[in-house]
Amino acid sequence: MKIYNWGKTIIISGVLKYGAKFPSENILTRKFGFSRETVRGALENLEKEGLIERIRGSGTYVSFKIEETSKKKVGLILSYLSDYFFPRLYDGIKSIMDEENIQIELAVTKNNLNEEAYYLEKFRNMNISGIIVEGTKSSFPNPNVKLYENLIQKNIPIIFIHNHYSNMDFDSIEMSDAKCSYELTKLLIDNGHRNICGIFKYDDIQGIERYRGFMECMTEHDIIINDDFIRWYSTKDFDYKFSKSSLNSFYKKTKYCSAMIAYNDEIAYKYADFLETRSEKFFKEFSMVSFDDAVLGDRDFKIISGIHPKEKLGRLAARSIIKMLNDNDWINNNYSYRFPVAISEGNSVKKLVEK
Amino acid sequence: MKIYNWGKTIIISGVLKYGAKFPSENILTRKFGFSRETVRGALENLEKEGLIERIRGSGTYVSFKIEETSKKKVGLILSYLSDYFFPRLYDGIKSIMDEENIQIELAVTKNNLNEEAYYLEKFRNMNISGIIVEGTKSSFPNPNVKLYENLIQKNIPIIFIHNHYSNMDFDSIEMSDAKCSYELTKLLIDNGHRNICGIFKYDDIQGIERYRGFMECMTEHDIIINDDFIRWYSTKDFDYKFSKSSLNSFYKKTKYCSAMIAYNDEIAYKYADFLETRSEKFFKEFSMVSFDDAVLGDRDFKIISGIHPKEKLGRLAARSIIKMLNDNDWINNNYSYRFPVAISEGNSVKKLVEK
Repeated sequence: MKIYNWGKTIIISGVLKYGAKFPSENILTRKFGFSRETVRGALENLEKEGLIERIRGSGTYVSFKIEETSKKKVGLILSYLSDYFFPRLYDGIKSIMDEENIQIELAVTKNNLNEEAYYLEKFRNMNISGIIVEGTKSSFPNPNVKLYENLIQKNIPIIFIHNHYSNMDFDSIEMSDAKCSYELTKLLIDNGHRNICGIFKYDDIQGIERYRGFMECMTEHDIIINDDFIRWYSTKDFDYKFSKSSLNSFYKKTKYCSAMIAYNDEIAYKYADFLETRSEKFFKEFSMVSFDDAVLGDRDFKIISGIHPKEKLGRLAARSIIKMLNDNDWINNNYSYRFPVAISEGNSVKKLVEK
Repeated sequence: MKIYNWGKTIIISGVLKYGAKFPSENILTRKFGFSRETVRGALENLEKEGLIERIRGSGTYVSFKIEETSKKKVGLILSYLSDYFFPRLYDGIKSIMDEENIQIELAVTKNNLNEEAYYLEKFRNMNISGIIVEGTKSSFPNPNVKLYENLIQKNIPIIFIHNHYSNMDFDSIEMSDAKCSYELTKLLIDNGHRNICGIFKYDDIQGIERYRGFMECMTEHDIIINDDFIRWYSTKDFDYKFSKSSLNSFYKKTKYCSAMIAYNDEIAYKYADFLETRSEKFFKEFSMVSFDDAVLGDRDFKIISGIHPKEKLGRLAARSIIKMLNDNDWINNNYSYRFPVAISEGNSVKKLVEK
């Protein structure tokens, strides 16, 4: 299903356009690490749906044409598209836009401000009706203020998802990050854990909020946070901070921790994999909680995670921007929403038995 | 003077106590990189003032006794003490405390939250009348809230310097960091610079504010900030982010920049030294602005820098906490102050001639 979803997303979203070469079986096998049979099955399904065409002796090509019509267009700025839970978020948005016969104009920033600036300029020069934005480097004041102001002057409604900027006043649809983090931390404490380490992202307001919830829960339970147990990273720092040597040094500092709260499931499973190779015994006794409920791969180990509403959030964002398109006073009306806390099942939290 | 000041500070502040061994000539020569004559001169001056005693064949010892009296005590929490402008800040505080016959109880955190927690606990269990605090990791919500609340319950007045916490409501004495950054950036722009790179600190609210001022000035002049030109670091990341290989990669990304705004003079001169070894020609044409006006070493190159009020800020902080000690309603009265922008002379900004 993973390859199928990935392929469908990059084709329907227009990342790979009609006639473009689609990755070969060999490349996909290497990229996803699934068996050749699985890859072939996914390609067959994509072909059945008319998304790709396999031409013997030549290769596989995209056979799906995005209609270039006079449809209403809504801009969608996301940090990522084809990985993690993003395909499901996109599906949610797409399903509503399709119902309303609205075309999505897609932009992917990789959390880079230059990309955000580029797409905001592009949208201004297009006939775009509204924009759904996931903010870039949202923990810092945003330098593209003027570009946003230009769009407002053209009366183009804008709604944020996941986050928002401290130096602008847009409505946003978000998770209850701090509250969710509070509940996850409480779960660890209720299971006897006090030495809890954490990895958080500092260039994203969700990272700061998730730290805040953790911090407030620890404080309320009179547990002092050990500074050496906290690790901050950013999009730019990622490769360095998750290199083996860097993780090793964090592992050594947190040897007396019995649990971890991780910024999201990507990080959590990355650290779990590292731990397992480092010390299987330690890993077996170690507890973890995390965010987004985006299960990665097939494992026995399922992390208890704050649930990201995925399609649901996508649908609500799409419905909200559509309402805003028909609301002359969108700028004064409230379209913000916080999804209540929901926490997934899992087997990643163990009761700590005092020795 | 540097060794003398350093020695005096660590003795008078009680870091090295009466009878403790003072570093030898050899060690000081290595530590500061001055000549043996300079080191000897400094030691002679310290001896003349009765701060140290040199015993032939044995070594050098601290001969200054801090009076252990029933004096009123004020706690002072600083991130650093013996480097940068901190001795001058300390001198300012000390001068007022001496006038008022108040003893300083000193704590140095190195921007580590464990140290902050340790000293706050210690102060609670001591007979302390008030506290001057430089916040630790001030850009993040602070986890030592309860320790601060305990002190308030004991009616111990607290005032912050340099920064403050977003999740507590204390008065603070600060520089106008964002405004100062705006003016420094404007100076660069007025001299024709548009491709400006920046290095900022992310675990300190001063870092975020200095970024904000830079960002607002760029935005107002319709210059879009290039994400690749911005580098963030923290206390924990320092060694990695200022390693030669890491600076090299930043240098390559910013080759088309004609100017830089640096978080402070320590960083600015560090980068200047790096640039000079990397490409003398580039360095000669490169412009820099920075903060704190803490000249480091003797150089031809003097960076234009936002002036930190040093002794002045120290004296104001001391006077404020003393007033608060005599104010039953200190918690409701306003003791906050922002020093107005002041910018130093220097030769680090060159007019950019279009080629």
